[in-house]
Amino acid sequence: MRLLLLNANTSEFVTGKVADAARLVASPGTKIVPVTGAFGARVIATRTEMAIAEHAAVQLMATHGAGCDAVVVAVSWDTAVRAGRELLGVPVVGITEAALVTGAQLGGRFGFVSFDARSRALYEELVAGYGYARAGSAWRVVASRAAFAPGDTAALEDQIVAAVEAMVAEDRIEVAILTGAVMAGVARRLQPRARVPLLDGVTCGILQAEALARLGVGRARAGSYAPPGPREVVGLDPALAARFGGGPAS
Amino acid sequence: MRLLLLNANTSEFVTGKVADAARLVASPGTKIVPVTGAFGARVIATRTEMAIAEHAAVQLMATHGAGCDAVVVAVSWDTAVRAGRELLGVPVVGITEAALVTGAQLGGRFGFVSFDARSRALYEELVAGYGYARAGSAWRVVASRAAFAPGDTAALEDQIVAAVEAMVAEDRIEVAILTGAVMAGVARRLQPRARVPLLDGVTCGILQAEALARLGVGRARAGSYAPPGPREVVGLDPALAARFGGGPAS
Amino acid sequence: MRLLLLNANTSEFVTGKVADAARLVASPGTKIVPVTGAFGARVIATRTEMAIAEHAAVQLMATHGAGCDAVVVAVSWDTAVRAGRELLGVPVVGITEAALVTGAQLGGRFGFVSFDARSRALYEELVAGYGYARAGSAWRVVASRAAFAPGDTAALEDQIVAAVEAMVAEDRIEVAILTGAVMAGVARRLQPRARVPLLDGVTCGILQAEALARLGVGRARAGSYAPPGPREVVGLDPALAARFGGGPAS
Amino acid sequence: MRLLLLNANTSEFVTGKVADAARLVASPGTKIVPVTGAFGARVIATRTEMAIAEHAAVQLMATHGAGCDAVVVAVSWDTAVRAGRELLGVPVVGITEAALVTGAQLGGRFGFVSFDARSRALYEELVAGYGYARAGSAWRVVASRAAFAPGDTAALEDQIVAAVEAMVAEDRIEVAILTGAVMAGVARRLQPRARVPLLDGVTCGILQAEALARLGVGRARAGSYAPPGPREVVGLDPALAARFGGGPAS
Amino acid sequence: MRLLLLNANTSEFVTGKVADAARLVASPGTKIVPVTGAFGARVIATRTEMAIAEHAAVQLMATHGAGCDAVVVAVSWDTAVRAGRELLGVPVVGITEAALVTGAQLGGRFGFVSFDARSRALYEELVAGYGYARAGSAWRVVASRAAFAPGDTAALEDQIVAAVEAMVAEDRIEVAILTGAVMAGVARRLQPRARVPLLDGVTCGILQAEALARLGVGRARAGSYAPPGPREVVGLDPALAARFGGGPAS
Amino acid sequence: MRLLLLNANTSEFVTGKVADAARLVASPGTKIVPVTGAFGARVIATRTEMAIAEHAAVQLMATHGAGCDAVVVAVSWDTAVRAGRELLGVPVVGITEAALVTGAQLGGRFGFVSFDARSRALYEELVAGYGYARAGSAWRVVASRAAFAPGDTAALEDQIVAAVEAMVAEDRIEVAILTGAVMAGVARRLQPRARVPLLDGVTCGILQAEALARLGVGRARAGSYAPPGPREVVGLDPALAARFGGGPAS
Repeated sequence: MRLLLLNANTSEFVTGKVADAARLVASPGTKIVPVTGAFGARVIATRTEMAIAEHAAVQLMATHGAGCDAVVVAVSWDTAVRAGRELLGVPVVGITEAALVTGAQLGGRFGFVSFDARSRALYEELVAGYGYARAGSAWRVVASRAAFAPGDTAALEDQIVAAVEAMVAEDRIEVAILTGAVMAGVARRLQPRARVPLLDGVTCGILQAEALARLGVGRARAGSYAPPGPREVVGLDPALAARFGGGPAS
Repeated sequence: MRLLLLNANTSEFVTGKVADAARLVASPGTKIVPVTGAFGARVIATRTEMAIAEHAAVQLMATHGAGCDAVVVAVSWDTAVRAGRELLGVPVVGITEAALVTGAQLGGRFGFVSFDARSRALYEELVAGYGYARAGSAWRVVASRAAFAPGDTAALEDQIVAAVEAMVAEDRIEVAILTGAVMAGVARRLQPRARVPLLDGVTCGILQAEALARLGVGRARAGSYAPPGPREVVGLDPALAARFGGGPAS
Repeated sequence: MRLLLLNANTSEFVTGKVADAARLVASPGTKIVPVTGAFGARVIATRTEMAIAEHAAVQLMATHGAGCDAVVVAVSWDTAVRAGRELLGVPVVGITEAALVTGAQLGGRFGFVSFDARSRALYEELVAGYGYARAGSAWRVVASRAAFAPGDTAALEDQIVAAVEAMVAEDRIEVAILTGAVMAGVARRLQPRARVPLLDGVTCGILQAEALARLGVGRARAGSYAPPGPREVVGLDPALAARFGGGPAS
Repeated sequence: MRLLLLNANTSEFVTGKVADAARLVASPGTKIVPVTGAFGARVIATRTEMAIAEHAAVQLMATHGAGCDAVVVAVSWDTAVRAGRELLGVPVVGITEAALVTGAQLGGRFGFVSFDARSRALYEELVAGYGYARAGSAWRVVASRAAFAPGDTAALEDQIVAAVEAMVAEDRIEVAILTGAVMAGVARRLQPRARVPLLDGVTCGILQAEALARLGVGRARAGSYAPPGPREVVGLDPALAARFGGGPAS
Repeated sequence: MRLLLLNANTSEFVTGKVADAARLVASPGTKIVPVTGAFGARVIATRTEMAIAEHAAVQLMATHGAGCDAVVVAVSWDTAVRAGRELLGVPVVGITEAALVTGAQLGGRFGFVSFDARSRALYEELVAGYGYARAGSAWRVVASRAAFAPGDTAALEDQIVAAVEAMVAEDRIEVAILTGAVMAGVARRLQPRARVPLLDGVTCGILQAEALARLGVGRARAGSYAPPGPREVVGLDPALAARFGGGPAS
Repeated sequence: MRLLLLNANTSEFVTGKVADAARLVASPGTKIVPVTGAFGARVIATRTEMAIAEHAAVQLMATHGAGCDAVVVAVSWDTAVRAGRELLGVPVVGITEAALVTGAQLGGRFGFVSFDARSRALYEELVAGYGYARAGSAWRVVASRAAFAPGDTAALEDQIVAAVEAMVAEDRIEVAILTGAVMAGVARRLQPRARVPLLDGVTCGILQAEALARLGVGRARAGSYAPPGPREVVGLDPALAARFGGGPAS
């Protein structure tokens, strides 16, 4: 199986980190194909950057999607996942949605660890959009940029463990989710130090993508995920433009 | 007052039509500044096109937003409205949200007329995201491209009137909303033929934008709509890149 | 344009204060017609007083509504707004609904400042009824009667500013709403001291009423807002009774 | 036990009918005290009439509430029930809320029979306000005024039975609710002809009122249902004014 | 009237306590028939114990249900109440649902007192399942086993009173609910010490069961509560097996 | 990996069918361990049978769970899945929840095919309990027992294909879910004849169980899924009783 691991951030460092973690959890027969955004923010964290990344993500899908059995969008905003399902016709997994559906099958109340106070509102909007804005969800912000650059992350990991334990003790969470693609693989490493299941989106995303690809449901031929047919577009990268067939707007 | 009327579609015809309707409803002192998307679909109607348009819309805002008192995004998907609020710090109105909040103050059950069966699901997702997916909303699709090109639209208008009356009689709607930027001004013209208030997004959007601009609340300086500060971005149009201040990622 | 500014409280002092603020925000061509409740509470703040005010409000509408282009109900309970839409057939705006739809277009999480601990539950019920009982809304009670009588309100205004800042810092609100008709105009004055948009209902209500009146949708002729036809009523004020046409109950 | 049976309609005919049905279901030791609205609509069915009736209902409560152990508001709009709980400090039951909580304990999907197409929207708003706007609720309108005047109702009853059976067969309802105070006692008479539990609000309301009165919880002394203390009011009926203690507005 | 008071716990002590409280509130003509679970947990408090108790409860209903006019399931998890409605065709009341519908008719915000930190999540799930997971509900855990064995409960009762008052003062609750069958009768005793209505499930359950039995709606003959007809079952207690008619699976 | 495939129905035929389908989708290294309920209904389809099966399922888990890496409950009611998570401390997957989370990652509106009109209400309750009772879900009942016995199912399969296509064409569904454990493997076979993804619970359940087991999160040590510690129970099967440690109720 061939999985496109799409990092819409323009940070090769993050792509590398995510790809390493993905390979650890992927099945032996799965080939991970990591790609990095061609334009936009180094690390997407604002509304404007998210808007730009929607385009960057579909351009990556158009360019690298051929021959892939599924896509994992390794951006915690699940950038362009619905567009990708329409565009490619293979399963496209968002790492946040993957973590949420995984957690829903493991326990009750969710606790989220995020790494940037400002973007928490964006994350909450995303979770609510999936219907998982449950009463009683807890949040802790561990303000740190340590994960985004090479170097020792031991102090950060201690903070994460403490944040999870605080949510267990104070907010009675039953599942902890580490937000951010850059947390790839961290949950597994810290699990022994947590009293509840600890999830990161990339790990969950790889597992969900393999599961969905093995389903073999093929492309939708009706509804809003079916191929749209030839559409008139202008000014796009050739790989992306080619996906619209070059015909006139229907 | 100066209102940026942003059409993220790449159709100048639609921009012209929307601008004409906007000028009819705008206050005497309001100057309408229409702009058209630089890249993407002629008429945005699929998930992939919406993703591309997010970028096109923020690029337009960055390029043309200076000096505007408010923005009306004249695309029925309210493309990048939240990004725009963050980016520009002036009111940014989506035509669908504008129609919904207007309708909510006029009556109960909503009835929507759309012009493309496929995109109805996308429209429903948008409405639900605003919290207006009320039980009992009704929909009628009038499959027609007549509005997207010059020419007589009398037959289309008869179909719209019939669709609205059908929803009044069969589904007991109390407010009718014509979806699509291209319906700009049509509601007002057809109102005498409808038994319930008839709304189009562009008309509602201009009125809401003027109202919000007159509020004078200024720019948020806290939260997810505050200016993000210098951010590291790559590969963007200069006007858009300039909005990020050129600094390193915070 | 002629706007009926309806204060269902029986306090002329509040009516005067509200009318002054309304005139500040209204367009040059708008004439504000303030009226005061003929019976009921000086300041409506309990469930029983709200019940009485429903009647007082429709009686004011029947008496003074002729010739008005829209009505603003300047009571934070949005007293009888739906009845008024049915009764008069022109836009009837509630100041709380107006503040909510305005805020929804400006930011995310709401923070409310109220001035009476007891009535907060009533206010929450109203907000929930409009579908805006969002997870994470914040509240602060500034227990003070200073706004309801002539005199210096500087201390009160400092308390309001502090309450808003506390909600920004502690609860991450993105829009602040000052409840109560008596706050008319205060938001605008205090905006420079707040880091997020600051709204008061009367200001929002005037702007929404002008917007809705300019829409020109006319009277609903179907559904629960259509004219009810002759109805048999007894014991009412003549102006109100006249609205029912004097015929037998249909 | 003494139950105030409050008909806020101004129709003595309806009051008599409701009182007869109430006495059939009440316990032997329960005394039913029927009262009729002093002003307003003969039969409340529009938004304006509901607004007026809020006042009429609290006036009746103030005048006749002394010495009663509970109140049943025999108007299908549950007029002023929350005001009454605050005003009187004894259980105040709305017949629609009573039918809903009764039905919730008997089965799943609800089906409603109403007798006036126009007011169905108002009824739906009320049901939604109680949190019972469940997906899949069914409605049938039996347009008839037969119940509101003396005379044979056999044809009406056949229509009701047919409407209930249609909802069972077509909409898979599991509980049927006859709306309208005037249906008092009809459910019990028609039960043998229905395949699911058949409820009318007055019967449910009497049973709930007796249950709540027997609880003996007494008056709330905190929160929005506690006595409001002396309040300044003007222009009210003496019995109602007396409830506010004649003091200045707190 | 004959009420089956079903304790699915296997504790005779709890059954006795519940039966005593039930007899205090029941009408003079009501005969309380207490029964105790034949297998399972002494005191049901975990998910596995709840699963076992579902079976124990329907076995008790099958064995003792004949001739009863209604059933009160005196377990705070409302174990098997929906199964019982199907199985027996008489009203089956759950004590938690009974407390919720009673409280909903008395005030607004709920406050719950529970006696075991671990099981609070289970209780919240149950409340949410009934649609009563209202924003703002408050909880206090009074960790104590005193109620489950003979002996002085004065200290426990002081803790309960303090927990209720804390929720009134800090969380503005308007109705307090004591969870757990073992609290039977305690609410009534402590009411004078609480500023808001204080409810326990068994008391509310007996009152609701009497009300529902007096309705006389009889057995559903359609839908998911109708008798299922002969079904093929194996390995069941004879009384329970007999309810399935011994026929082949339909 | 060792997966316990738990059929709480007492039909060996269904167990065999489910196990065959499970082996087709399972990874090469996964061993499927099928077990059948020891008591209860041949095919669980009523509320009483569901109550009994809760006990049967936890007894099977206690007896056969040792050494398994995950459990798939192959009953469309997801019988005792939450109890199993608590009892065993390994992932326990319900086939309906698995189908829902799979479908949510593939498209929008769901369409369900069920095989028994009566039990549809139970299925809807289950789906709603998971938060997936989306507006616009569609249902079709294909009344047939053909799947529950050996023999030709071609006619049944044609009916399923027709039902799915009807929901695509009429209700605009984007994902189809075949309910019932007995549909195991049918979705995959019929996928080429459907225009949208077609799912059955057992296939989805095996894939989810493998994914969750590979996560390696281990046992919750806090919250309502942690081991409950010694509990006092009576009258249980020894394997189940042993799980409670034989100690006194805590």
